[in-house]
Amino acid sequence: MKKVAVIMGSKSDWPVVKKAVVQLKQLGIDVEAHVYSAHRTPEEAKNFAVKARDNNIGVIIAAAGMAAHLAGALAANTTLPVIGIPLKSSHLDGTDALLSTVMMPPGIPVATVGIDAAQNAALLAAEILAVNEPKLDEKLKNLRDENSKKVLKTDIEVQKEVIEME
Amino acid sequence: MKKVAVIMGSKSDWPVVKKAVVQLKQLGIDVEAHVYSAHRTPEEAKNFAVKARDNNIGVIIAAAGMAAHLAGALAANTTLPVIGIPLKSSHLDGTDALLSTVMMPPGIPVATVGIDAAQNAALLAAEILAVNEPKLDEKLKNLRDENSKKVLKTDIEVQKEVIEME
Amino acid sequence: MKKVAVIMGSKSDWPVVKKAVVQLKQLGIDVEAHVYSAHRTPEEAKNFAVKARDNNIGVIIAAAGMAAHLAGALAANTTLPVIGIPLKSSHLDGTDALLSTVMMPPGIPVATVGIDAAQNAALLAAEILAVNEPKLDEKLKNLRDENSKKVLKTDIEVQKEVIEME
Amino acid sequence: MKKVAVIMGSKSDWPVVKKAVVQLKQLGIDVEAHVYSAHRTPEEAKNFAVKARDNNIGVIIAAAGMAAHLAGALAANTTLPVIGIPLKSSHLDGTDALLSTVMMPPGIPVATVGIDAAQNAALLAAEILAVNEPKLDEKLKNLRDENSKKVLKTDIEVQKEVIEME
Amino acid sequence: MKKVAVIMGSKSDWPVVKKAVVQLKQLGIDVEAHVYSAHRTPEEAKNFAVKARDNNIGVIIAAAGMAAHLAGALAANTTLPVIGIPLKSSHLDGTDALLSTVMMPPGIPVATVGIDAAQNAALLAAEILAVNEPKLDEKLKNLRDENSKKVLKTDIEVQKEVIEME
Amino acid sequence: MKKVAVIMGSKSDWPVVKKAVVQLKQLGIDVEAHVYSAHRTPEEAKNFAVKARDNNIGVIIAAAGMAAHLAGALAANTTLPVIGIPLKSSHLDGTDALLSTVMMPPGIPVATVGIDAAQNAALLAAEILAVNEPKLDEKLKNLRDENSKKVLKTDIEVQKEVIEME
Amino acid sequence: MKKVAVIMGSKSDWPVVKKAVVQLKQLGIDVEAHVYSAHRTPEEAKNFAVKARDNNIGVIIAAAGMAAHLAGALAANTTLPVIGIPLKSSHLDGTDALLSTVMMPPGIPVATVGIDAAQNAALLAAEILAVNEPKLDEKLKNLRDENSKKVLKTDIEVQKEVIEME
Amino acid sequence: MKKVAVIMGSKSDWPVVKKAVVQLKQLGIDVEAHVYSAHRTPEEAKNFAVKARDNNIGVIIAAAGMAAHLAGALAANTTLPVIGIPLKSSHLDGTDALLSTVMMPPGIPVATVGIDAAQNAALLAAEILAVNEPKLDEKLKNLRDENSKKVLKTDIEVQKEVIEME
Repeated sequence: MKKVAVIMGSKSDWPVVKKAVVQLKQLGIDVEAHVYSAHRTPEEAKNFAVKARDNNIGVIIAAAGMAAHLAGALAANTTLPVIGIPLKSSHLDGTDALLSTVMMPPGIPVATVGIDAAQNAALLAAEILAVNEPKLDEKLKNLRDENSKKVLKTDIEVQKEVIEME
Repeated sequence: MKKVAVIMGSKSDWPVVKKAVVQLKQLGIDVEAHVYSAHRTPEEAKNFAVKARDNNIGVIIAAAGMAAHLAGALAANTTLPVIGIPLKSSHLDGTDALLSTVMMPPGIPVATVGIDAAQNAALLAAEILAVNEPKLDEKLKNLRDENSKKVLKTDIEVQKEVIEME
Repeated sequence: MKKVAVIMGSKSDWPVVKKAVVQLKQLGIDVEAHVYSAHRTPEEAKNFAVKARDNNIGVIIAAAGMAAHLAGALAANTTLPVIGIPLKSSHLDGTDALLSTVMMPPGIPVATVGIDAAQNAALLAAEILAVNEPKLDEKLKNLRDENSKKVLKTDIEVQKEVIEME
Repeated sequence: MKKVAVIMGSKSDWPVVKKAVVQLKQLGIDVEAHVYSAHRTPEEAKNFAVKARDNNIGVIIAAAGMAAHLAGALAANTTLPVIGIPLKSSHLDGTDALLSTVMMPPGIPVATVGIDAAQNAALLAAEILAVNEPKLDEKLKNLRDENSKKVLKTDIEVQKEVIEME
Repeated sequence: MKKVAVIMGSKSDWPVVKKAVVQLKQLGIDVEAHVYSAHRTPEEAKNFAVKARDNNIGVIIAAAGMAAHLAGALAANTTLPVIGIPLKSSHLDGTDALLSTVMMPPGIPVATVGIDAAQNAALLAAEILAVNEPKLDEKLKNLRDENSKKVLKTDIEVQKEVIEME
Repeated sequence: MKKVAVIMGSKSDWPVVKKAVVQLKQLGIDVEAHVYSAHRTPEEAKNFAVKARDNNIGVIIAAAGMAAHLAGALAANTTLPVIGIPLKSSHLDGTDALLSTVMMPPGIPVATVGIDAAQNAALLAAEILAVNEPKLDEKLKNLRDENSKKVLKTDIEVQKEVIEME
Repeated sequence: MKKVAVIMGSKSDWPVVKKAVVQLKQLGIDVEAHVYSAHRTPEEAKNFAVKARDNNIGVIIAAAGMAAHLAGALAANTTLPVIGIPLKSSHLDGTDALLSTVMMPPGIPVATVGIDAAQNAALLAAEILAVNEPKLDEKLKNLRDENSKKVLKTDIEVQKEVIEME
Repeated sequence: MKKVAVIMGSKSDWPVVKKAVVQLKQLGIDVEAHVYSAHRTPEEAKNFAVKARDNNIGVIIAAAGMAAHLAGALAANTTLPVIGIPLKSSHLDGTDALLSTVMMPPGIPVATVGIDAAQNAALLAAEILAVNEPKLDEKLKNLRDENSKKVLKTDIEVQKEVIEME
C-alpha cells in the first residue's frame, strides 16, 4: 500500500499536524512528514511534489496558515491527490488560510478539510487509499463503529443526567 | 476502474454540476449522476451512499447550496471519499455552502473544492482513481500539459499586445 | 402537554445545552435529552425524528457546532417544529454553525436562535407549546415580568451610581 | 385553528413576503397581513403584538431588511412564537438583517429562517400550528411527499441526460 | 445647556458605558443614565424617548449588544439625535451589534460610533451640544490639544528609544 | 440657523449624495456642497474643516467609499459634529467604507450612518440643528408623521390584497 | 532606469491588468507583461522571478484572483519588491484573493494594493523606481497635481449645481 | 543609502512596530521612528510626509489600527512609497485596519502587508531600497538563505520525530 506524506509550512504547525500522523499510523498507514515552506523553501517543496509518486506516495496532506499556498504549490507539481489543512494562525481565525487553500483556480484542485482539521485530513487520505484496499476500509468502518458507540454511550449519560435533575 | 457518482441536491444545480460530468467523461471515467436532496429525499440519499461501494463506485461528488448538508450526509453513510462542491445560491455568494461543506466534525471528512468548482471536483476524483491507475494518471498529466501550453500561448499574445501599445 | 426533546451533536455541547433543559424544567415542561450526531450516528438521529411525534414530543431543539447539520437532519425526518441552536466551536466564532443551521433549502425550515442561545431555544419551544396552553403562557408572561423588574431594578442602581459620581 | 399573521416592515417587501401568504393559504390556514414598521410606526407594531393572541393569532411572521428590528419588536410585546424573515436589502446581501434578527438577547427569542425564506417561514408557522392539529400535519406530510417525488423525478431526468451524453 | 442621557440595554454593559458618563461629566455636561432594554422593557424605553426633549435632554446615547435594537427603538420615538454604541457581546466580536445599529432604514437615523466606543459617543454628544455653545467647544478644543501633546510626547520617547537601540 | 456642509470624496459620489442635499433643502436648511478628497486634495479638505465653524457651518456630512478617510480627516480638523456616509464602491459592498468610517480611534468620533444612507445623514444633521430649533424640530416631526401615514396606507393596501387572494 | 514587469495568472485578467501597463507607459516606464500561472505554469513563473533582476527588472506587479498565489510565488523567488493586485473573480468579491495576497508569512512580503487596483499598482511601482529617480518623481507629482485640479474642478461644478437647485 | 521612517499612530502600537525597527537595523538600514496620529496630530503627520524626501527618507512605513488612516494620510502628502501595516486593535481582529489601509482610492497607493506584519514591512522597505543597492540585496538574500536552512533543519527534526513514533 502506498504511503501518505504530511507536509507542513512551519514547525510551529507540528502540534496540530501531529494528529494527522498519529491517526494515519493507528490505521497502519506508512507516513513520512516534512517541513517545507511554499515561500521559504519553494524548491524543496516543488522537488518533493515532483518525485512523490515515484517515492511510493499515494496521497499528500499539506498544512499551512495565513496566505496558505503550500497545498496549491504541491498540487501544481503532482497529479497525486493533495489534501489541504487550513491552519489558524495569529489572526482572522483561519479564514485567510481556508480561502487560500480551497479557492483553487480551474485545473489544479486541492481537497480541503476544515480549519485545523488534521485528524479529518488523515481519515480522508485513508479513505482515498481504501478505495482499492478492502482491509484498510474495514479498519475505517471499525473506527466509525467505535465512534458511534462512544456517541451513544454519552447519549445514555445525558439521558440519565436529565432524569436526575428532576 | 471504479465509477464516479455525481450527486446534486436539486436539478437547478445541474448547469454547474454538468461540468464535472463532462470532465469525467472526457477522461474516460464512468459516471452516474443523481438528484438526491439531503433534506427532501434523505432516505434515498442515505441508501445511495450505503450501497455505493457495492455498486462499483470509487468516489462520490456531492454538490449543494445554502446550508449544504448533502456531502456530509453522504459521507456519514460511506467510507468512500466524498468530494463536496459548495454552490452559490441566491444569497451570501456561496459562503454558507462553503462553511456547511468544509467545517465537518471530527471523524467524517469531506474533500471540499472551491465554490461552484465542478471541474476541479472532477479532476480531484480522477486524481483519486489515478493513484493506482497509471493510464488515467497519464491522461491527467496530458491535460495539465495542454493547459500549460494554453497559458504560455496567451503569454505570447499579451507580450505582443504590450509591445504594440508603444 | 407534549414534551420537548433536546438533542445535541456531541456531549461536549452539554454545558451550553443544559441551560435549555434547566429553563424548560423551570417552566414545568417535560424534557428528554439525547446525544445524536448527524454524522456519527445518522441512523439513530433519523429514527428519533421519525418517531418523535408518536413519542409525544411537540418540539425538538437541536444544538450543533461547525457544519451543523443536526437540526436540518432532524427536520428532514419530521414535521414537528425543529429549533436549531448554532454552537460556537473552536473556530469562526459560530458563524459556520449559524449559516449551516439557518440557510435551509425551501421545504424544510429550521427555527434558528442565536449562537449558543440555549435559553432562548427553550423559551421558543415553550412559546410554541403555549399557543394552545394558557397556563404555560401565564408562566411565560410571569417570567417576562420578572425579567422586566430585574432590568428596572438595575436602572435604579445605575441612576444612583451616576448621581454619586458627582 | 388559529390564524397566522404576516407582518412586513415596508410594502417593498411584499413581493418576497407574498410567498408566505400563498403557502399558508394553500395549506388552508387563515392569514392576515400587515405593513408595520418597527421604526416608522412603532406604536401600531406594538399594539398589533399586544393584541395578537386575543385576535386569535397563533403565530406571527415578521419580515424586515437592514437593521431588521421588526421581529424582535413584536416578540418583545407578545409571548406568541414570532418567526423572523431577514430580507436582503440594497447592501450586504442580507447579512445585516440576518444578524439583527437572529442574535436576540436572552429572554426574547425570534425563530429565524433563511434570508428571504418566506416559504419556509410559512411552513414553520404551519408546523407550529400542526403540533396539535393532525389534519394540518397530514397536509404538511403530503406536501413533503410531493416534493420528494419531484426531486426523484428530476433524478431520473438527470440520469437519462448523463447516459445520453455518451 | 441640555443634558445627555446615556441608556444601556443591560447592567452588564455598564463597565463599558461608564466611560461615556465619566467623559461627559469631565466636560461639565449633565448626564442621566438608565438601563432600559428594547426587548425586556420596551414600554419604559419608549416612554423615556417620547418625553426626553421635555425632560431637557439634548442628545441620547444608547449602548447595546447582539441584535442591538435599543438605539433604533429610541430613535423611532424621538427627533433628538440618538448616538448608538454597538457593544461586543459573547460572540461575533460586535459585528452583529454594529450592523443592527448602523443599517437603519430611511427616515430614522442613528449616529453610530465604533464598537464599544463609549468615550467617542460622549465626545460626539458634546460636539452636538457645542454647536451653539462656544464654552463647551472651548473645552473640546482643549481636550484635543492635550491629546495631541500626549501623542507628541510619546513621539519623543519612541525617537529616543530607537536612537538608543543602536 | 447654521448651515450644513455636504462633502464628497469624488464627483462620482454625487448621485447618492444629492439625496442628502435635497432632503436638507426640503427642510429649509442652508446647504453648501463640495468635492474634496482626503487623499487627492488633503489640504483643501483640511482647510475647509478648520474654517467650517467660522463659516457658519453647524454640521458636516462627509461621504466616501473604499478606504473612506474623508469623514475622519475632516473630524480631525474641527470640533463640529461630522456625519460619515460610507459609500458602496466597486467591491466589498461598502464594508470597507463602513469600517473605515465608523471604527474611529478614541478622541475623534464620526457619526456614522448606513451604507449609502444619504437621506438619513441629512435627517441626522437636521436633528442636530433642531436640538435648539423648535421650528425645525416641528418639520422633522411632520415628516415622520407623513412617513407613518404612508406606511399605514400601504398596510391597508396589503390587507386588501390578501383578502382578495381568497 | 529599470523596467517594471506585469504578470497575470490568466489572460482573462488582462482587461483589468492592462490599466497598470497603460499607466506605466504614460509615465515613460519600460514594461514587459506576461501570463504565468502559479499553478498551471509554476516552472515558468519561478524562472521568470529568478532571472528578473538580471533582466533589468526593478519591480514586479502580479495580479491574480481566487486563491491568488502568484504574487507570493514570485516573491518567494526574488528579492525584488513584488506588488500584488488581488483580482475579483466569480465569487466572494475578491476577498479570497485579497487575503491570499496580503497575509504572507514572515520573511516573504508582498506589497498589496486594493482589489482590482491595477492603476494604483502601477503608481506604487513608479514610486518605488522614483526613490532614486528625481525625473520620474517629477512626473508623479505632476500627475497628482492634475488629479487635484480635476477634483477641485468638480468641486466648483457641484457647488454650482447645489446653488441652482434653489 | 536613504533612510526608512517608521510611523505609528499610537505608542501602544510600539511593541508590534518595534520588530520593523529591529529588522531594519539588523540589515544596516538607518531608521527614524515617530508617533504621529492621522486624527490627533494631523498637522505633524502631514508635515512629516511633505518633508520626508528632503530629509533623506526613501520609504515610509506606517502602522495603525481600527479605521487606520495613517498610511493613507502620509501617502496623500508624499510620492515616496508608503508601506501600511494594519494593526489588530481591540475588535474585529484587524479586518477594519486591513480594509482601511489597502482599499485606497485611485491615485494614492499604499503598499499593504499582513495584519501586524511589522517584520515583513521592514523587509519590503529593504527590498525597495535594494533595487539599486546590490550590497543590501546581498544581505536580503543571505537572510533568506538562513531562513531556508532553518526550515530545512526543522524538516529533519520532524522526520526523525515521526520515525521515532513507530
